[in-house]
Amino acid sequence: MITATALTPVKQPAMDDIIGGALANQAVSVRGMVHALRDMGGLTFLLLRKGDGVLQCVCPPEVELDGVTEECAVEVLGTVHPEERAPGGAELAAAAVRVLSRPAAPAPVPLSKWKLNLTLDSRLSLRPAVLRSLRERSVFRIQAGICRAFREYLQSQDFTEIHTPKIVHAGAEGGSNIFRLDYFGRKAFLTQSPQFYKQTMVPVFERVFEVGPVFRAEKHSTTRHLNEYTSMDFEMGYIDSFYDIIAMETGFLRYCFRLLGEEYAGDLARLDITLPEMKDIPCVRFDEAKRLAAEKYGYAIRNPYDLEPEEEHAIGRYAKEVWGSDLVFVTHYPAKKRPFYAMDDPEDPKYTLSFDLLFRGMEVTTGGQRIHDYYQQVAKMERLGMDPAEFESYLMLHKYGAPPHGGLGIGLERLTMQLCGLDNVRLATLFPRDRTRLEP
Amino acid sequence: MITATALTPVKQPAMDDIIGGALANQAVSVRGMVHALRDMGGLTFLLLRKGDGVLQCVCPPEVELDGVTEECAVEVLGTVHPEERAPGGAELAAAAVRVLSRPAAPAPVPLSKWKLNLTLDSRLSLRPAVLRSLRERSVFRIQAGICRAFREYLQSQDFTEIHTPKIVHAGAEGGSNIFRLDYFGRKAFLTQSPQFYKQTMVPVFERVFEVGPVFRAEKHSTTRHLNEYTSMDFEMGYIDSFYDIIAMETGFLRYCFRLLGEEYAGDLARLDITLPEMKDIPCVRFDEAKRLAAEKYGYAIRNPYDLEPEEEHAIGRYAKEVWGSDLVFVTHYPAKKRPFYAMDDPEDPKYTLSFDLLFRGMEVTTGGQRIHDYYQQVAKMERLGMDPAEFESYLMLHKYGAPPHGGLGIGLERLTMQLCGLDNVRLATLFPRDRTRLEP
Repeated sequence: MITATALTPVKQPAMDDIIGGALANQAVSVRGMVHALRDMGGLTFLLLRKGDGVLQCVCPPEVELDGVTEECAVEVLGTVHPEERAPGGAELAAAAVRVLSRPAAPAPVPLSKWKLNLTLDSRLSLRPAVLRSLRERSVFRIQAGICRAFREYLQSQDFTEIHTPKIVHAGAEGGSNIFRLDYFGRKAFLTQSPQFYKQTMVPVFERVFEVGPVFRAEKHSTTRHLNEYTSMDFEMGYIDSFYDIIAMETGFLRYCFRLLGEEYAGDLARLDITLPEMKDIPCVRFDEAKRLAAEKYGYAIRNPYDLEPEEEHAIGRYAKEVWGSDLVFVTHYPAKKRPFYAMDDPEDPKYTLSFDLLFRGMEVTTGGQRIHDYYQQVAKMERLGMDPAEFESYLMLHKYGAPPHGGLGIGLERLTMQLCGLDNVRLATLFPRDRTRLEP
Repeated sequence: MITATALTPVKQPAMDDIIGGALANQAVSVRGMVHALRDMGGLTFLLLRKGDGVLQCVCPPEVELDGVTEECAVEVLGTVHPEERAPGGAELAAAAVRVLSRPAAPAPVPLSKWKLNLTLDSRLSLRPAVLRSLRERSVFRIQAGICRAFREYLQSQDFTEIHTPKIVHAGAEGGSNIFRLDYFGRKAFLTQSPQFYKQTMVPVFERVFEVGPVFRAEKHSTTRHLNEYTSMDFEMGYIDSFYDIIAMETGFLRYCFRLLGEEYAGDLARLDITLPEMKDIPCVRFDEAKRLAAEKYGYAIRNPYDLEPEEEHAIGRYAKEVWGSDLVFVTHYPAKKRPFYAMDDPEDPKYTLSFDLLFRGMEVTTGGQRIHDYYQQVAKMERLGMDPAEFESYLMLHKYGAPPHGGLGIGLERLTMQLCGLDNVRLATLFPRDRTRLEP
């Protein structure tokens, strides 16, 4: 009988070891996809796509390459040689190429080109092929790095990970942009946010986080909205003010950009990304931010209670030009633009103890302090014409006691989009969902 | 103007530092929930519930406790004193207690009791209160540890995290147990598994993982099924056989149990959990496992192609009694019980190159090798009466070339349930969804 514990997980030789010199002049066997195949007259250059890079394999004429095409999966046997002109500074002198699998058709786009000149629609419709391009996939390696940084940083700050339901009986954000579902004959919804549940967990764990999907049935089509996206949420108890939440997010961003700089340098370079500097991120009041940008760029404020995308852009531009920062926290949003659980500012209840983070002119985070007192929450719901009885299970949090608390949600795709300088949030999503797109 | 980068994330003093002696005889201020309040005649013992433990605070008569009740959020100022009889070996000699918030009603269950004697229905309906009990919450600290181990281990093995859509145009598992959704006038479904997408990412990243929700519209009510659960999935390319996947899962489990033993010892002790030993986990063929268990426990095999819960239990018992293992990999499941993407065993196509992991007699993992060749996959679909045209976007994976690959999905709640010795999977879920339960 085979014993599982006697098996050893297979590790492929890491690109860093091959091109970094640890395996120089050694015989290795490397598996990967044939990313490109170039006949250089006698010699054939086979670019092998690995999960973490590309390895140049040089095949002399005696290496049998019959039937080897791009997007074959192969095993290349050979010797690692330092070679300055190769990507990464080393190449594989191939002795044999073994085919592991073959495609049934050539790729519909030239994957080995530096840039794919495709329409947005093609880039999205042909995702299973397009994502194999090195630049496309670097976006998602960076995205994985952001998620990893979020968790690692919050774990270091004593947060506990939670998993909350996505099928819910009531929406956290209200409004009509909610997907409906038949749940064994009952009406149910897809969650717009883990808001109720993460708050509920504050008296249990003090500090919690969740990275998970949220759903918004937005009917409009913009470059910055998705109908399903990944929200990085946290919620923390015992805060003195919402600045504690801003401080935590700032700590995360600092950690994140440092991690990306250290461990994802190849992907950053491939996409020509400059990481934001983390010095002197301003916190500016909503009304003040609106006024400053309108005065500087000479436009009239249309709606004092709202922040339109163009205005976010102007405030971001102001932050960069005047304060030298890619990031700006806009605080004290008007109560009428914030949900019923937002804590009003006791000094002026038209505003709330809340904030957004704008990154290069786009909102990537919404956060703030929440109401923790039962009577205060019920009174606000009634003032807004809501029926507290419909929120009985959520209100157990307040009824049975909750510390002062707050938190935030970060849109993973938007953060990725702004960091990578993409012009459409769909390109920061492996398989985006929008009004017309249900596949791939 | 406030500058975010000038703010420092607030850290509460960690329980380990308080009770571990690092803060002995120092004045500290600690915030938490009043877990229990006991008048010991003159002295009052206030048990302060922190995110990571409970701190005994001793309040002499001069400390003002008027209006302090259980489930108040408070800040206790005092001095840390070593005290052998206190939980953890230290207590706080309180000088003052400041109330941060008050509940509107007493907890509906006696949270400070060692065990809550509640019906299953109460334990689930009163979740926002019940989860504050130390034993209930330990289950979810362990669950967070399992997830953390899964990611940390796979990252160390060069896996990349992905996020795939939960709203899909076709189910991966087929059948009727799928939730339907109106998606802007089109028919859509909630994903049963990230199967198609994680396979699609293998030619991109070689090795990928995802921890996320999946949905099954199971109409029956059992102690081991949920309608929404968290699936820990991975998929890896360039495998030689499905034993590579078993080896990877075994490596994860070894890492996981070690991490839990090292960093979650308090929670394991509170729940009286013995971690499984990781030596000599047997891999046994499906037909052989069925035969061995039936012979030993003297029952007739009713269906040679299926494994019923009672039979899983018997095989688990056999593995424990005969092989001394809590874990057993059952391999080579019949083709008719596996989905269309499963690789048939070339030596006997009635069976597949697949496996389940049984943990203490219950399936917690399903995995196997997948078909990677386009023509082979299309032929199998046609043989099963499926229309390949409906799966065009999934089949792009095979069409444009995929390496030999396979993977698995682990049910997070089932793994938690079996590890914690719970008798219902709902108790391993913060907010379970079943046929009748949509809230809290």
